[in-house]
Amino acid sequence: MSRAYDRLEARFKNASVLGDALSVLHWDMATMMPDGGAEARAEQLALLKTLAHQAVTADDMADLLAAAEGEALDDWERANLREMRRDWVHAAAVPADLVDAMAKAESVCEMIWRQARPNADFAAVLPSLREILNLTRQAGEAKAEALGVGIYDALLDQYEPDARSAEIDAVFADLETFLPDFIAQALDAQAARPDPISPQGPFAIEKQKELGHKIMACLGFDFHRGRQDVSAHPFCGGYPEDVRITTRYDADNFFSALMGVIHETGHALYDFGLPGGRWRTQPVGRARGMQIHESQSLLMEMQACRSRPFLTFAAPLMKETFGGHGPAWEAENLYRLGTRVKRGFIRVDADECTYPAHVIIRYRLEKTLIEGRMDLADLPAAWNDGYARLLGITPPDDRLGCLQDIHWYGGSWGYFPTYTLGAMSAAQLFAAAKLADPQIEPAIAQGNFAPLLSWLRTNVHGQGSSLSTTDLLRKATGKPLDAGVFKAHLTKRYLD
Amino acid sequence: MSRAYDRLEARFKNASVLGDALSVLHWDMATMMPDGGAEARAEQLALLKTLAHQAVTADDMADLLAAAEGEALDDWERANLREMRRDWVHAAAVPADLVDAMAKAESVCEMIWRQARPNADFAAVLPSLREILNLTRQAGEAKAEALGVGIYDALLDQYEPDARSAEIDAVFADLETFLPDFIAQALDAQAARPDPISPQGPFAIEKQKELGHKIMACLGFDFHRGRQDVSAHPFCGGYPEDVRITTRYDADNFFSALMGVIHETGHALYDFGLPGGRWRTQPVGRARGMQIHESQSLLMEMQACRSRPFLTFAAPLMKETFGGHGPAWEAENLYRLGTRVKRGFIRVDADECTYPAHVIIRYRLEKTLIEGRMDLADLPAAWNDGYARLLGITPPDDRLGCLQDIHWYGGSWGYFPTYTLGAMSAAQLFAAAKLADPQIEPAIAQGNFAPLLSWLRTNVHGQGSSLSTTDLLRKATGKPLDAGVFKAHLTKRYLD
Repeated sequence: MSRAYDRLEARFKNASVLGDALSVLHWDMATMMPDGGAEARAEQLALLKTLAHQAVTADDMADLLAAAEGEALDDWERANLREMRRDWVHAAAVPADLVDAMAKAESVCEMIWRQARPNADFAAVLPSLREILNLTRQAGEAKAEALGVGIYDALLDQYEPDARSAEIDAVFADLETFLPDFIAQALDAQAARPDPISPQGPFAIEKQKELGHKIMACLGFDFHRGRQDVSAHPFCGGYPEDVRITTRYDADNFFSALMGVIHETGHALYDFGLPGGRWRTQPVGRARGMQIHESQSLLMEMQACRSRPFLTFAAPLMKETFGGHGPAWEAENLYRLGTRVKRGFIRVDADECTYPAHVIIRYRLEKTLIEGRMDLADLPAAWNDGYARLLGITPPDDRLGCLQDIHWYGGSWGYFPTYTLGAMSAAQLFAAAKLADPQIEPAIAQGNFAPLLSWLRTNVHGQGSSLSTTDLLRKATGKPLDAGVFKAHLTKRYLD
Repeated sequence: MSRAYDRLEARFKNASVLGDALSVLHWDMATMMPDGGAEARAEQLALLKTLAHQAVTADDMADLLAAAEGEALDDWERANLREMRRDWVHAAAVPADLVDAMAKAESVCEMIWRQARPNADFAAVLPSLREILNLTRQAGEAKAEALGVGIYDALLDQYEPDARSAEIDAVFADLETFLPDFIAQALDAQAARPDPISPQGPFAIEKQKELGHKIMACLGFDFHRGRQDVSAHPFCGGYPEDVRITTRYDADNFFSALMGVIHETGHALYDFGLPGGRWRTQPVGRARGMQIHESQSLLMEMQACRSRPFLTFAAPLMKETFGGHGPAWEAENLYRLGTRVKRGFIRVDADECTYPAHVIIRYRLEKTLIEGRMDLADLPAAWNDGYARLLGITPPDDRLGCLQDIHWYGGSWGYFPTYTLGAMSAAQLFAAAKLADPQIEPAIAQGNFAPLLSWLRTNVHGQGSSLSTTDLLRKATGKPLDAGVFKAHLTKRYLD
C-alpha cells in the first residue's frame, strides 16, 4: 500500500465489517434473542461500537486524511475520501468512553422503555431517558464544535448529512400552513364518499406471510440475499448481501401488515442496490442518508403500492390468498381503504396526509430538549399540546403519546425530520421516474416492478453516497427538494 | 485498578464478550443466514477472531501475567490466572495474520465442503482442505513449541486442556481390544430378541417440536435464557444467558431427532450452570473442556434418557403427542429401539457401542495427517481401510466416508477423541451421581431431573474451569477417568 488513501480504505473496511456484525446482533436482539440475553447483548453492542469507533479514530487519522487529499484519486475515491472525513469528524469528536457510555445507556433505557410503554408510565423511564439526553447533548456539543454548526444540526447531520434545521424549519413552516386546511378538505371529500369496507378476518399469519413473500418477490426482494421475520417494531437491517426485514402481523388487518412489508421492502431494495465490489465496505458505498432511505420505503409503499394501478394487480391476489369474496375485495375499495385519512395518535399508523404533523411535533420537541430549552419532565404535557394544536386531538395517556416511539429512548435524536423529508423526496423521485419511463406505471399494474427498480438502481441505489442528497435529487429529478411535488401528490390523490 | 491481575481480568472480559458475539454470528450462519451472506459473514468472523486474539496478546501480557503471579489472589483468582496463562500461551503462539488466514480459509473450505459432501466429491474440497491442514500444522507447530509437547497434543490441548495422546493411545488400545468381541456379542444378544417395532410416521414437525420442548423443560432447559431452532448439523451455541441449541428433524423418525434434542440440552444445561457473576466472562468461568462438555450431553442422552426409567415416563407422552397406538409405543419397545446396535458408516447416527470405533478411526487419521505421515490425497482410502478393519464395513463413497464430518473442513483438528473421552466420563459421572443420591433414578422415571441436575450443578457445571478435568472427575467420582465404568455400563446394558 503506497497511498495514505489505501491505508484509510483498509481501516474503513474494518469499521464496515464491525458495522455489519453489529447489524446482525441488533436484528437478533429484536427477532430471536430470549429476554435473558439482554445484558450480555448490550455488552457486545457496546464493545463492537467502541471497536468500530477506534478503527476510524486512530491518532494518525488527521494526517492520513490530509495526505490523501493531495494524492491522485479518481472521482469515486475522491467522494469516498469526503465521506471518510465526514465519518472521522463525527467519530473523533466523541471520546471512546462516551461512545461506550451511550451504547450501554441506550440498551438500558430501551429495556426500561419496553416495560414503561405498555404501562403508560413515563415516570418509570424518565431517569434513564434523562441520562440518554444528557449523554446525547454531550456528544452533540462535541460534534457541533467539530462541524461548526448548532447542537441540533450536529445530531441531525448523523442521520442526514449536510441537512440543517434552518432549511427544515422553512419546509415545515410551509407544510404547517398547507396541512390544516388540506386535511380538513381531504376529510370532507372522504366523508362525501361511502366508507370503504374492511375485509373480515381473521387472516391466518401463514397466509399473510405467503402473500407478503409473493409481493416482495414482485418488488424485487432477493431471498438468497435476505429474509423476513417478525418483530414488535418493523425495521430493515443487515447489509446488501443479507438484508433482514421484519413485520408485525395483525390477524384482523392483513392490509396494514402488508403495507408494512412493502415499506420495509423499499428499504431493502435500496440496500440490495448499493454499489458492490470495493465500494461495498467503504463510506461512499453506503446509503446516502435517512432522507433518501425513507424515500425508498415510502416510494414503494405510498407512491407505488397505495395506488390504483398496484391494487388492480394485487386485489385478486389478496382475495385468492384469503379466499375472500364480496365488494370488500375490489381494487377500488382496497384503494380507498389504503388511502383513508384519519387524525390519530400513533405516528406509525398515520396516513400520509397527517403523518407530517406527527413529525413536526417531534422535531420541534426534540430540538427544544436538545437545545436545553425545556425540562424532560415537561415532555408529556408539551407533547399533548402539540397534538391538540396540530391535529386537534389530545392523547389520553403517554402510551399513545410520548412513549410511542423508540427513537429517543434508543438514543436517536435528530432522526425524526428525515421521515417527512423522505416522504417529499419519494413523491419527487416517483414523479421523475414515471416521466423518464412511461412504462413504469402500466408495468406496476401488471405486478412488474422491473422498470421502476431499474430507474431507481441507476438514479438512487447505485449512487451510494457518491453525491450529496441535494445533488442526487437534482441529478435524478432536475431540481433540489421541492415540497410542491409532495403537496401536488397529496392534492391529486385526496382532493381530486 | 491496582493489581496486574485486575488489568488481566478486564482484557479477558473483552475477549469473552467478543467470543459471545462470535457465537451468535456462528449460530445465525447455521440457522438463519441466507446463502448470499456467506462471504460477508466470513469477513465478520475473521475480524472478530483477530480482535479477540489481539485482546489477549498485547506486548505486555507476559509481564502482567508474571506480575499477577506474585500478587495476593484467592483460590478462584489463582485458578483464573492459570487459565488466563493457558489462553495466552495458545494465542500468543500464533501470529495475528495466521489467525486471520485460518478464519478465512475455514469459512471458504466449509462452504466448499457443503457442496462437495452431497456429491461425494472429495477431490473438489481437497485443495482447500490442504490449505486448512497446512495452516493448522503451522499453528500446531507454533503451539507445540510454546507448550513443549508434540504437534498433535498441541492441537488436542485447544479442545481438551492437558490431555495428551500417549494417554489416549492407551485408552483407545484398551477399547480396541474390548470392542470387537463386545460388539459381536451385543449383536448376537440382540439377534436373539425380537426386533423392536418402529413407530410409523410421518410425525409432524410441529408435534415433534412440542414434544421436544416438553422434554427440554423436564430436563431443566430455561427458555428465558435459550432457544431451540433447526440446522443441518445440530449443535449447542451461545452463552449462559442465551443458549442456542439446534435440531435436525426427520418426519419419519421422531425418536432420533428427540434424542438429538436431549443431547444438545445436556450441553445447554452445562452452559446454564456455569459460574455466574464476575466469573462469567473469565477463563475460569468457562466450561472445562470438550471432554466434560460431551460428557454432559451423553450423560443426558445415553445414560439418563436411553434408559428404561426415562422411557417409562416418556413413552406415554410420545404416544399421546403423535396419537400413536399399539406395541410400538410401549416403553420396552422404545428402549430396545433406543439401544439398537448396528455397524454403520455415519458417526452421528452410531449407537454407543460402535461409536468409539468411529472416533478411533478419525483420531488415528488426524494424528497421522497432522504429523505429516500421510498425504491428504490418501485420506479416502485410509478412511475406508479403517472402517473395514474396525467395523468390518467399507463405505461405498466419500459422502458416507471421509466427507461426513465438518470438523477437519472447519479447521477442528484434535477434537475427535473428546467424544469418546466424554462418553467414558458420562458413564463415570452418572454412576457416581446415582450412588450419591439414590433418588436420581426414581425421579427420572417420573420425568423429574431436578435431583440429577442438582448433583451436576454442584459437581460439574458450577466448577467451571476451576479444576483440571482429572481433578474434576476425581472430586466428583473419587477417581480419575476409568474406562472400566464405561465398559461395565455397556456390558450391563447390552449383554445382560
